[in-house]
Amino acid sequence: MRGAVLYAPRDVRFEERGLPKITKPTDAIIRISATCVCGSDLWPYRGINPVTQPPPMGHEYCGIVEEVGTAVTTVKPGQFVIGSFFASDNTCPNCQAGYPSSCRHRELVGDAQAPLLRVPLADGTLVATPDLPSNDMIPSLLTLSDVMGTGWFAADAADVKPGKTVAVVGDGAVGLLGVLSARQMGAGRIIAMSRHESRQKLAREFGATDIVTERGDDGVARIKGLTNGIGADAVLECVGTQESMTQAIRSTRPGGSIGYVGVPHGVEFNGEKLFYAHVHLHGGPAPVRRFLPQLIDLVWKGKINPGKVFDLTLPLDQVAEGYRAMDERRAIKTLLRP
Amino acid sequence: MRGAVLYAPRDVRFEERGLPKITKPTDAIIRISATCVCGSDLWPYRGINPVTQPPPMGHEYCGIVEEVGTAVTTVKPGQFVIGSFFASDNTCPNCQAGYPSSCRHRELVGDAQAPLLRVPLADGTLVATPDLPSNDMIPSLLTLSDVMGTGWFAADAADVKPGKTVAVVGDGAVGLLGVLSARQMGAGRIIAMSRHESRQKLAREFGATDIVTERGDDGVARIKGLTNGIGADAVLECVGTQESMTQAIRSTRPGGSIGYVGVPHGVEFNGEKLFYAHVHLHGGPAPVRRFLPQLIDLVWKGKINPGKVFDLTLPLDQVAEGYRAMDERRAIKTLLRP
Repeated sequence: MRGAVLYAPRDVRFEERGLPKITKPTDAIIRISATCVCGSDLWPYRGINPVTQPPPMGHEYCGIVEEVGTAVTTVKPGQFVIGSFFASDNTCPNCQAGYPSSCRHRELVGDAQAPLLRVPLADGTLVATPDLPSNDMIPSLLTLSDVMGTGWFAADAADVKPGKTVAVVGDGAVGLLGVLSARQMGAGRIIAMSRHESRQKLAREFGATDIVTERGDDGVARIKGLTNGIGADAVLECVGTQESMTQAIRSTRPGGSIGYVGVPHGVEFNGEKLFYAHVHLHGGPAPVRRFLPQLIDLVWKGKINPGKVFDLTLPLDQVAEGYRAMDERRAIKTLLRP
Repeated sequence: MRGAVLYAPRDVRFEERGLPKITKPTDAIIRISATCVCGSDLWPYRGINPVTQPPPMGHEYCGIVEEVGTAVTTVKPGQFVIGSFFASDNTCPNCQAGYPSSCRHRELVGDAQAPLLRVPLADGTLVATPDLPSNDMIPSLLTLSDVMGTGWFAADAADVKPGKTVAVVGDGAVGLLGVLSARQMGAGRIIAMSRHESRQKLAREFGATDIVTERGDDGVARIKGLTNGIGADAVLECVGTQESMTQAIRSTRPGGSIGYVGVPHGVEFNGEKLFYAHVHLHGGPAPVRRFLPQLIDLVWKGKINPGKVFDLTLPLDQVAEGYRAMDERRAIKTLLRP
C-alpha cells in the first residue's frame, strides 16, 4: 500500500508504506473513502516544525470498517465511520468531562493519507453514520474528523450564543467553518477577517454578515467601529501566530471570550495585558469526538454543508500537488480520494 | 487632613494632604469608617512597582456620605456606603455587561487611607447598606470594597459550582476569601495551598477541606493525588507571579477553569503549553461593583464574615506599621481606623 510521507520541507512523496494491521484487540482497520490536507500539515511542510525521521502524513479520515479487533463491540465491518485525529477511549475522566482530545490514553492518528488506516481505541474513537452515505455527502462527513469539529470548538470555546456578535480571525478552512458554526449557534452578527476574495465569498455563504480586510491597529479599529466601540462578544482565533492572537485579544470586549484553535507557534501571552483585557480564553486541540454525533446529524439532515471548504479534489496519488496548492494558497483545502 | 503617602520603598508617611473637595457634580465625599492595606499596595511598597512622585495610598473604603455633588441622586449624606477601587458609571456597555472595572469612564480611587475621601461617579460607584451597620460589622463590609470582591471574582471566573473540586493558590487575604467564596458557591472540596499555620487555620475556618503545603512539582503531584490524577475543576490564582500561575495551570484538569486575580508581575504564558493544558482562563481587575449588592446582603444577614481576614487593627496614624506587619507577614491584613 502506498501513502504520503514527508521527507523534508516541501517534499511529500506517495510511496510504499506497508499494510496496516490490527495490533491490539481494540484496533480497527478502515478503508479510507476520503482524506485531506490540514492547515496544520503545512507547519512541518513549510519547515516551521522540524522533520526528523520522515513521518507518514494525514490525520483526517472517514471510510468503511474493514476489520476490527476482538475487543471492539460498537462498530463492525461494513459500517461507514468517522473519527478524530486523537483516538480516545471515551471512558476516562477527561473524556467524560468532554475533553477526549486530552484522553488519558489518547493516541495521535497520523497516517491517514493512505487507502487503509489503523485506528486505535476503535470503540471510543469511531462514530458510525446511520447508513452508508451518498458520495456527495462524503466531503462534509470528512470535515467532521477535524476541520469542522475544530471550527465548531472555536465557536463553542468562545461561548457563541444566539444574538451575540462574533469575529473570526483567520480565513483558512477552520476559520470559514468557524463562521458556519457561529451561524449554526445563532450568532447575530459574524465578522470575518479576510483579504482573499474567494474566501470572503465562502465566508458570506457560510453566514458572515461583515468582512474586515484590515489587520493590526486598523483591523481592531474596524471591529470596534462595528461593535459600539467595545469589541466583539466572541472571537475565534483560527491561525496560531502571535499576530493573530494579539488581533483576537484586542478585538474582544471586556468580559468577552476567545476560542483559540490554531496550534500556537511562538505565541506568548503577556500576563498583565491579558489581565487588563478582561477576556475569557479557552482553546486547545479540539475535542472532536464530543461533537461527532451532533455534527453527523446536522450533515445527515442537510442542515450544514461544511464540505464546501474543499475547492480542490485530487486522486490520493497526487497528494504532493494537494500540499503545493494549499501552501501557495491556490486552494483553501484539498480533498484526496484513494 | 492627614493621609498616607508612599515616598520610597518601605517609606510610608502619614502627613498633611489637604481636604478632598467635590470637583465634579457626580462626586461624593465620604467620611471613612475603616480602610486597610491591600496586598497590591505591597508591590510599590517593596519597590517592585517604581514610585515616581510620592502617591497617596489606599483604595479600600467604606464610610458615611458627608456631601454629594449636584448631579448625585442615588446616595445621600448620612448613608453608610461601600465602593470599589475603580469608580464606574454603571451605565456604559462594559458596566452593563458586568465589567464595571473596565468601565469606559473608570477612575482609580487611590487615596483612601485618610479620614475623608472623594469618590467620583458616586451614583455608579457607591452602594448603601440597608441601615447604619453595627461597629463589629464594619470590617466585613470593608472587605467588600476589594479583597472579598476579588476573592469572589476569582471563584466566579473559575466557574465554581456546587460539588466541584477547587484549588486555591495563594494564602493571602484574597486567597483566603477565595476559599470562603468557593464554600459559599457550594464547592464540594476546597484545597488551600498554604505553608503558614495561622493562614491554614483561617482557610479551614472559611471552608477548606484539604491543605497542601508543597509547591512546584510536589504541589502539582499532591493536587493530582487528591483529584483522581487529573487536577482540580476550578483553580483560583491569587498571587500574580510566574510561579503561582504555572502552579495554577498545572493543577487544573483539562477543560477546567482558572480564575486569576493576582495582578500579574512578570507573568508570561507560553501559548503552546496553555493550548495543550486545555484550561479556561479568565481574570483581571475584579468587577467588584457587580457583586456589591449580593455580598452586602450576605454580610448583613450574617451568612459570611470575611472581616476575619483582618488580624491586625491599628489607628490610621499608625499606617506605616500596618504596611510593615504585612510586608513581614506578621499580619494577613491590616485594618485602619481613622
